Order: sequence, then C-alpha cells, then structure tokens
Amino acid sequence: MYFTSDNWAGVHPKIGENLSRHSDGFAKPYGASPLDREIQDRFSEIFERDVAVFFVATGTAANALAVTVYDRPGGVALCHEEAHLIADECGAPEYFTGGGRLHSLPGPLGRIDTADLERQLQWFPNDALHAGQPTVVSLTQTTEIGTLYQIADIARVSAICREHGVALHMDGARFANALAALDASPADMTWRAGVDALSFGATKNGCWCAEALVLFDPDQARQMPFLRKRAGQLFSKSRFVSAQFEAYLKDGLWLEIAAHSNDRAGELAQVVSQSKRLRLAWQPQANEVFAVVDSKDAQELRDNGVHFADWVPPSSMDNKPGNQEILIRMVTSFATTDDDIKKFAALVA
Amino acid sequence: MYFTSDNWAGVHPKIGENLSRHSDGFAKPYGASPLDREIQDRFSEIFERDVAVFFVATGTAANALAVTVYDRPGGVALCHEEAHLIADECGAPEYFTGGGRLHSLPGPLGRIDTADLERQLQWFPNDALHAGQPTVVSLTQTTEIGTLYQIADIARVSAICREHGVALHMDGARFANALAALDASPADMTWRAGVDALSFGATKNGCWCAEALVLFDPDQARQMPFLRKRAGQLFSKSRFVSAQFEAYLKDGLWLEIAAHSNDRAGELAQVVSQSKRLRLAWQPQANEVFAVVDSKDAQELRDNGVHFADWVPPSSMDNKPGNQEILIRMVTSFATTDDDIKKFAALVA
Amino acid sequence: MYFTSDNWAGVHPKIGENLSRHSDGFAKPYGASPLDREIQDRFSEIFERDVAVFFVATGTAANALAVTVYDRPGGVALCHEEAHLIADECGAPEYFTGGGRLHSLPGPLGRIDTADLERQLQWFPNDALHAGQPTVVSLTQTTEIGTLYQIADIARVSAICREHGVALHMDGARFANALAALDASPADMTWRAGVDALSFGATKNGCWCAEALVLFDPDQARQMPFLRKRAGQLFSKSRFVSAQFEAYLKDGLWLEIAAHSNDRAGELAQVVSQSKRLRLAWQPQANEVFAVVDSKDAQELRDNGVHFADWVPPSSMDNKPGNQEILIRMVTSFATTDDDIKKFAALVA
Amino acid sequence: MYFTSDNWAGVHPKIGENLSRHSDGFAKPYGASPLDREIQDRFSEIFERDVAVFFVATGTAANALAVTVYDRPGGVALCHEEAHLIADECGAPEYFTGGGRLHSLPGPLGRIDTADLERQLQWFPNDALHAGQPTVVSLTQTTEIGTLYQIADIARVSAICREHGVALHMDGARFANALAALDASPADMTWRAGVDALSFGATKNGCWCAEALVLFDPDQARQMPFLRKRAGQLFSKSRFVSAQFEAYLKDGLWLEIAAHSNDRAGELAQVVSQSKRLRLAWQPQANEVFAVVDSKDAQELRDNGVHFADWVPPSSMDNKPGNQEILIRMVTSFATTDDDIKKFAALVA
Repeated sequence: MYFTSDNWAGVHPKIGENLSRHSDGFAKPYGASPLDREIQDRFSEIFERDVAVFFVATGTAANALAVTVYDRPGGVALCHEEAHLIADECGAPEYFTGGGRLHSLPGPLGRIDTADLERQLQWFPNDALHAGQPTVVSLTQTTEIGTLYQIADIARVSAICREHGVALHMDGARFANALAALDASPADMTWRAGVDALSFGATKNGCWCAEALVLFDPDQARQMPFLRKRAGQLFSKSRFVSAQFEAYLKDGLWLEIAAHSNDRAGELAQVVSQSKRLRLAWQPQANEVFAVVDSKDAQELRDNGVHFADWVPPSSMDNKPGNQEILIRMVTSFATTDDDIKKFAALVA
Repeated sequence: MYFTSDNWAGVHPKIGENLSRHSDGFAKPYGASPLDREIQDRFSEIFERDVAVFFVATGTAANALAVTVYDRPGGVALCHEEAHLIADECGAPEYFTGGGRLHSLPGPLGRIDTADLERQLQWFPNDALHAGQPTVVSLTQTTEIGTLYQIADIARVSAICREHGVALHMDGARFANALAALDASPADMTWRAGVDALSFGATKNGCWCAEALVLFDPDQARQMPFLRKRAGQLFSKSRFVSAQFEAYLKDGLWLEIAAHSNDRAGELAQVVSQSKRLRLAWQPQANEVFAVVDSKDAQELRDNGVHFADWVPPSSMDNKPGNQEILIRMVTSFATTDDDIKKFAALVA
Repeated sequence: MYFTSDNWAGVHPKIGENLSRHSDGFAKPYGASPLDREIQDRFSEIFERDVAVFFVATGTAANALAVTVYDRPGGVALCHEEAHLIADECGAPEYFTGGGRLHSLPGPLGRIDTADLERQLQWFPNDALHAGQPTVVSLTQTTEIGTLYQIADIARVSAICREHGVALHMDGARFANALAALDASPADMTWRAGVDALSFGATKNGCWCAEALVLFDPDQARQMPFLRKRAGQLFSKSRFVSAQFEAYLKDGLWLEIAAHSNDRAGELAQVVSQSKRLRLAWQPQANEVFAVVDSKDAQELRDNGVHFADWVPPSSMDNKPGNQEILIRMVTSFATTDDDIKKFAALVA
Repeated sequence: MYFTSDNWAGVHPKIGENLSRHSDGFAKPYGASPLDREIQDRFSEIFERDVAVFFVATGTAANALAVTVYDRPGGVALCHEEAHLIADECGAPEYFTGGGRLHSLPGPLGRIDTADLERQLQWFPNDALHAGQPTVVSLTQTTEIGTLYQIADIARVSAICREHGVALHMDGARFANALAALDASPADMTWRAGVDALSFGATKNGCWCAEALVLFDPDQARQMPFLRKRAGQLFSKSRFVSAQFEAYLKDGLWLEIAAHSNDRAGELAQVVSQSKRLRLAWQPQANEVFAVVDSKDAQELRDNGVHFADWVPPSSMDNKPGNQEILIRMVTSFATTDDDIKKFAALVA
C-alpha cells in the first residue's frame, strides 16, 4: 500500500507505450519537431484558445519560471503559506527571479483568504519604493492539502489581482485531479476565471517527466524561450516529453486517470471516517487524504506495509493532533488499486 | 541522411527497453530509490573512486551548476571561445552563478592554448579586487569541433589550474566518444589527469534524457543537493533517468555506441577527403566531421536529403571557406547506418 | 518641529568640520589611505578585539551584504516581521544573495520571540532539501519601533542561533542610541553576546553618509572585499567616510549625540503621556516615540508645523488605534532642541 | 607629484564649501528635498531636455545599473576589452543584472572598432536562442586610456546600435574632461549622437562622492527607483550629493576644472615628448598621459616622489614596451599644479 505520494508510482502503460512508439527515427531537437508542434497545438485546443506552452523538467521549474515572467525589481509574489512554491522549492522562485520575494498568506484549508490578500495588497502603496512591488499571486489547485478552489473562488482571487495590477498564477501540479473533481473545463478553471499562467503538471498523474508552463497570453511569452534556455530547462530531445503528453491528452486519458485516483481517495476517506483508529483531518476533495492517527497505530500501519507521509499540521488546522497523535497524508494515483483500499480497510477496521 | 546533430536521433533500443522494464511498481522519488542508489554506485565503479553524481535535465544545467560549485564573488570562469558554455547556453553559467563571468580563450582546433591560459591567469593578481578572481577552467572533450585533448593535454591544463588555485571542469557532452577515440579509461581521462568536475552527457549518445554532473571530490558536493533543487533540476521520478543509465553503462553499451558513431564519422571523413566537391575543414577525431563545400553543392546535398548544420568558421581556422563556400558540420550517432554513409558517398562522388 | 525621521537632520558640526579638514591633499583611494587604516584600527579598539570593517553607502547595503556573507544555496534568513531588512529594503537582501529568502518572525514590541524562533528553526530538518537551509538571524537594535533588546535578550537569541548553526546579525542603524540607552559597551552588546556581524549606522546619528558592516570574526570576511566591490559599494574617495567616522568616534561624540537624542525623546514621551490629546503607543526606550492620536488632532499638529511619520500599527500591538485614530512616529536627533520639545508641549497641552 | 589617479585628490574648495553650507537644517530624505529636485532640474537644463537622474554611490554602480536597465534574459552587453565595466568592476554588471554577459570588443586606442561591432552584432541571429540576445553597447568617454571618441564616432556606434535594436550607454567617469577637450555641449556628445544612458561621473573631477546615472528617455526610467533602492544605492541624506552637484554645475565650474586638468595633462605630455627618458605611448586627448619608460628610470622617478600607475599594455598597442621597459599612466586633476609639472619636467629633463 504505497500512499506516500503520487510520485512514487511509475508510468501509466499507455504513456510508456507511446514513448516507446516514438523512440526511433530522427527529429528536430529543442521543441521544433512535428510532434512537439502538434502537442503545442493540442494544448491550445484543450484550453480553447491560443496558448504558449513550455516544457520544463520539474514542477519547481514551471512555478519558478512563472514567477519570473511577471517579476520586476523589488518584486513580491504572494502565495499561501503552505504552497509548494514557498515550502518545498528550496528558494527556487527567489533564485530564478534573481532576488524576488515570496510573501506567505495564511488561510484555512490550504486556500488563500481573499480578505487577507486584499489587505496585503493594499499595504503596498503605489508610490512606495521601500516595500517593493507585488507582481503575481500564486494559488495551488488542488491545494497542498488536497482541497479545492471552486471556480468562483478563483475568480474572486483574480478580481483582487486585476484591481491591484498583479498577475495570477496557478500551480497545477495536480491540475487534472482538480478538473476531474470539479468536472470543469480547463478553460473555465483557468483563463476564463482570470488565471494568467499555469504550471501544468502531468508527472504525478501517470507520466515519467512531463511538466509544462502554460501562458494564456502568448504576448507575455516573448522572453520565455530565453528564460527557459538560460535556466537549463530546454530539453534537446524534447519529443520524449511530447510523446508522453500525446498519450496523456488523447481520448481523455489524463482525466480518466485523475478520476480513478480521486475515486480511490474517496474510498480511502470513507474507510478512515468509518475507522475508530483514525479520523479525517478535513474532508478530502481530490486524491489526497489527511488523517489524524495515534502514533502507535501509525507505527502498526507502517509495520503492516502501509506507506504514508508524516505531515506538519497546518497552522490554521482545527482540531489539531493531540499529544500522542500525528497527522499523516495518503495519496492515490493511477497505480492505486481496489485491492490496496481493501487491504488498508482491513487493517484499520 | 540525418547528420545535423546527434541529438536528432531517438533512443537506443536497449535503453528504451530498460526504461519500459522499470515503468511500473513504486519507488522513492528524488533519487532515493534503490535503482538510483545502484546507479550512483555504478558511477563510482566506473571512475574507480568515490564520486558524487547528480542527475540534471540538460547539459547546459550540468555545465552551469559545475561553474556554480566553484564560483566566488567576482568569479571568472575561463573556457575556449567556442565552448558550449559561452557560445550556446544563453548565459546559463552567468545566471546560475548569479553573476559570475565567463572569459573566453582563443586556441586552434577547439582546444585551449595553454600558453594563453597561463598568461590570462597571471593577469589576475592575487590581491586585486577590481579584476575579479578566476575560479574554474572548463574544457570540452570532445571539443565543439570534434577534436580531442590527449590525456597529456588535459594534464597540462590541470597543472596550470593547480598552480593558480582554480578548479578544472570537463564538459563531456560527448564524453563516451572521447573515451572510445582515445581508448582511455574514464578515470585516466578525468580525475587522474586533474579534472575536478565532469558534465557526463549521455543524451547525445543514445539516451532520451540522461545528463549528470559528476564531482570527483565528494566533499566539494555538500551544497550540490541544494544547488540542484533550487535550480529546478531535481527530478521526482528520478528512476526514469537511472533506468537509462543502467542500460547505458551495462556491458559497455555506452562505449560500443560511441565507437560505432566514431567509426561512421571516420568513414564519412574518408568520403569527404576523397570527394572533389568537399574538403575536410580539419581532421575529425570523434563523431563530428566538418567540411568546406561550395554553397551550390551544399544546396544540392540538402535537396537530396542530406541534413547537416551550417557552422560559423572558428576564428583560428586555417584555410577558411572562400567566397562561395560554407563550412558544414555532420554528426553521427548510434542511429547512423552504413547505408547512410554509402548514400552520401554516392552523392558526393 | 521635525520629528519625521532622524535622517531629516543634516550633519553634526564637528563631523562636518572634520570632513572639511580632510578635504585637500592626496590620498590612496579604495580604503588604502592612512586615515582609512586608522579608522579601521579605531573600530577594533572600540570593540576590544580585531574586527573587519567595510564602509558602504547605505544601511540597506550593510544589511544585505551581511546576509550575503552567511548565505548558502536555498538559504533562509530570519528576522522580525517589522525589520527594515524585510519591510523597507525593496528586496535588497534577496537580491544581494541572488535569491536567498527572508522569513519573517512575529513578536511583541518589535522583538523576535525566542520561543517562536526556536520553533521555526526546528522546522528545518538537517537533511531536508526542499525547505531550504537557515543561515542567519537578524535582529534590530534599537528595534524598528524604538524598543530595546536587553543584553540578556541578545544572548538568548544567539544561544538559539548557535544551537542551530546559524549566524547572528545585528542591524544597528541606531546602534549608538541603543548603547547610550543601555549604558553598555559596544563589545558587550555585540560579540560578547554572540553577535557575528553588525550593520554599524552613523548616518542617522549625525553623519552625512557613514555606514559600515563590521564582522567580528575577520576570517569570515575574506570574500567581503569582492562582495562589496561587486555590489558597487566601494567608495574611491573612501577617506570622506573615514573623516566622518574620525570625528564621530572621537572623545565619545557618537554616544553624546545618541544620549542627547534619547533624552529629547524621553522628554517628548513625557509630554505625550501628560497630554490628553495623545497617548503613548508603548514605552519608548531610545530616540523614537510612537503615539496614538485622533486624526483631526494629527492634522492640527501638521498645520502647526509638527512633522511626523504615519505608521502602520504592528500586528502585535496592544491597544490599537481606534476608528478615528492614527499611529504616529516621532524621532529625535542631534538637531532636536529643547525648544522643539517645548513648542510641541505647548501645542498638545 | 601625485599622478596615480584623479581619485587621489580631495574635494575642490568650492564644492567642499557648498557641502558645509548645506550641513544644517532639516530636509526630506531619499532625493525628495527641494535641493535634490532643483539639481534634477539642473541636469535637464544642462542636457537641453527632460532627463531622469539617479544619484548612486560609485561609477561601478552607475555602469552596472545602466546595463541592468536594458538587460533581458540571456542578455549580452558589449564593450571595449579595456572598459572599466569589464576590466575593473569585479563582475558588477553581471551581478547587478543577475547573470547578464559582458562581451569584450577589441579596438585600437581604447575605442570600439565599428566594423568589429557590426560583425559581432550580426553574429546574433534574431531567432537564435542559444547565443543570447545583445541588449546594450557601452562606450567610455574619455576612454580608459585617455583618448576620445569624436562626436561623429559616437554617432557611428549609435547607428549600428539602432540598426540592431540595442541601446547605447556612455561611461562618463571622465565626462567633463571629454566635453572640455571636444568643446562640445553635453547634449551633442550624448543623446543627440544617439546615447541612451550616461554614467555621469563627478567624483574624479573634484567631488567627494557624486555619481549619477542619467537616462535620456525618462520613460525607460520607470523601474530605476526600484533598481537603485534594491541595490542599496539610495542615499538617505541625498542632499549631500546634491550639494556637491550644485557647486559643481554652477557657473561652469565642472568644465573649468576639467579644462584645468586637461591642460596640465597636455603640459605633462609635452614634457614627456621632449624627454629622452620617456616616450609617449600614444597621444593623450584629455587628462591622462601614458608613457613608456625604462624600469630603472621608473624607479628613480618613484624615489623622487613621482606617483604614477603601472599599466598593462593594451593588446592593440603599437610600439609596445621593450624588455626593460614598462608602461605608466599619469593623471591630472583640479589639484595638479604648474609646480607639479615643473618639478616633473626637471626630473626627466
């Protein structure tokens, strides 16, 4: 039972097969092959408008480059205090921008609190040099703790961004899981709701290595080829990323995988809520389940082959773990089976 | 006849198969899986000493991180004026270091001229602040124009580096081709000759995406995990790189591929030297052949399906292209066949 | 009545005269003149140990370079949420480090809360890459809101720093005011209490432009000449800074000025506490007085020639300004006279 | 006889007096005082158009910020191989830009060779990512070796810049000396000849510390306040710089001082050309005289109290120093007297 993270899984068979299918022959490097161009068009199709797509090696790179696109001297990017951007990227956004600042925002259930965002942005006067200038807000969908922004929530954040002249970025490391959970269209959940840039993650959802930065206004992408190349993020054999995306985006495979993962997580959540040995930390909305468990029980689970991650309780968490308790995270993926859930259910019954 | 670059080829079948073989199951991410650790040990075995190995997305990233490891404030890295580092990386080394300088060195046949290197390094007085401080010399093996440093050449460069307290980096984008051409051991061509850091490229030699930075003194690698993560270069599903390296390094496959490429290039060179329509720009030593050809003939070749790259003549080139002539580059790879060479020979006969 | 900031004042007559005294003749530039060397020795004398002193143009530069000295990849510097470093330097510390992060710490009365500091530092596990690595804590003495750390407070912060292997920096933009208020020796308030680096500000206390970064362990200063030069902070006619420091540090002038300013602030505080139209926001401890005042009264003060600064209430402030009230800051300097205080007293009586 | 550099001199009496005159009273900091604003207007008057003026601490900062204003990702700034920017600023331009590149251009007598500039700029194809993108050309007036660009020369450089879409910066560390030597107007020698940005140096010409970056198109200056503040280059007591400029620019004092220095250098050159013990390295055109002298004679001069700088012979120098000879630089300033020249003449007669 491997629930530690969705990045412990390998590659979805259809994606692996497609990679093999494209393994021979000659093709132009650096994103100029016919397959590369086809996939770029495919993104525009999926998003129902012309978009600029840039493959990169990691979600960290996608996020950090997104912040960089909008950075200015003394730039301040704002994100939730639990965002991957600020909590898990070893300073990449500050580094890629050459010294931009990340400002963390509190907020319950992993979501930016719009009242607080408004207050923070008002704090930067237009003419004040000393405080720096806000440039971009980043929200994570699904959030770091497996919750969701409804589309109206995103629109509310974006309205505040517009008012203050800052851009809106979405960290979509689990973008497909959010789409599947909300049953929304990619366009509705992004640019139609005011999102300017999207880190489009596919690695966690069944690829080997397929991450892209999507800019909804191609005009803003003019410097991106230089930004990406300079960051050592331009693959020569770019088609190996395109081959993954080709299969991923074909016939809705990506949403199918995401729905599978979300469903397994739903089942896991039900198991937890029915168990006397664990309690749900909060209601999961996609493919991550957070639970509070007695330390001894946690150890017993580990001893019985359940892999999960220990998690630092969010500062805004209601009903925090008690003295002998810990918070754990369990994540599902394409590779999670019914059997995994059943075995787990048996253990915690 | 695809001779434009070795990065136009796909993946060698054995490497592709191994990637497929590792496509399912669960494994720890970020380089912590058993396979990842095995490959790290394999590198130490190959280099006959403990080495620190860091997978990255691109050769540009490996080079730029290598320069960063040795950088200091006001740092100056020195490399040949045709080095990839300075000519083809869009400023990545300066960017990764946060403002280090690259200083270019002239030199015939793509090699650093040691007398000039000595002169340049002497120019930086120990106590002079204003000029900055030299930190690392980078040489490319095989060079950008398909020539080689003999091991004694490398030792000569490294002796100068030692004397001036600067480190020595080798850009080994075509490392295997050099090894095969010199019939040298990896240890002899690197740390035993005084090399401190190596960009170990495998992508051009039959992988999809397999690049590593190798530091021969693991003590110098302490900050590397942070440097790599911060640069967005830490793959989550790291095993997909390891799986490539596993096959690549098994039973000498990497050297076999390199020898194949070098042999095809040798045949190509012979064809060129026997043709009246082209002349060798200089004697090739690995898998790249540079030729001077009349513009009209070049067009005819293109029309007949020969793909090659136009090349800016090196400033030190003897016997430069005449008015109606151009310099072209032809590169061979695992995917170059006898048939390709024969067809080409027929065209230029 | 100019109370907006101590940087509205000009130059203290004795300092101005000394600058004039050194205005002719020839001297080595870049800190190599006899006067420059003499002042460097004077700093060692004052601090009762060998120190490395680097003049820079601004307090922002001193702070940002201090953070840079201790930075490592993925580095995180911690400071109070109101610190100049994070609130008023337009991202200079992140910029100078090339992407280090500043992490803000809450704490009442402008001081770092040691329990919170301990908690934050424990959060960075030694082996965790993703969160980055803490490098330095910066405290401000006197704080941004005119309060003080007692020497024991500083020692407590430094003990936590030592335990976690991070350095301790003191932003001493108003260093002399703190010394005068605590009647402490420079050594006791800094390195003897565990401070590694000090931004030694003299501009606010009667100089034109005299700021220095002092490193108590000269070994840590080896790269500083390069760091400073590269940052465009190495004055050619360095003696014009030295000339200011010569007068400043002679016969205790600096402490005399600071005591004068502190005394005037004490009187101002008494006037405020006796007035019915203002109330002290908190007890001032050096040369800054914060008061809460009705907006209309504030306007009346302005109309009567009182200059002061509007201030955003600290998040930890007890007894925050009410609806029609604002928080104001009044700062005294060498140029504040008894008469200024009397006139102000008459206005608010 | 202090000829080592014009930065060995102190402050011109009129400038020092004006600084004293402004030493008391209260004034808004950070460039917002009436005097600061007056001086900003004065610059516009002198340049016969609206200009944006930013005081900074050093010429290095002015140059590095100028490059930064025009930088883009993968940006390449081009300058003469002897330019201060590349030879004497410890990497500041690369650092301030966060990784821009400096590309050096050869050229006789310290001047950029326009044919070579043209060739270099053509080398960067518009669509080529890998080489980076040229952003700005910097020329030094007077050059590092005391020669001049005629106004037509500047216009020729700027025409090439325009054609390739790159900006033109002038490093005017000795701007007044060039103006005096050419008897040109500030407007004619800068923006009317196509210069976009000017490092306006006054420190070497009689000030303590008075350097400014002048942008001729104020629209390009929008981010400059942030760039300057973030670089720790925003003086709080800005009026102490303004006070220097007030006197400097009043009644043509700056040009008077420059003419004085140039005249003394002319006399020095004549002495050299008439001496049998030295020869002019090239014809001086402003306030710097370069001479070739026998090592023993050089030592004798030193022993007799002549201070001068040893100089590395430019690579393009005709008639290089012989085996026992060295190249020396002698610089004059407002503080150089007739008597200095006479004493020197007596020594070398």
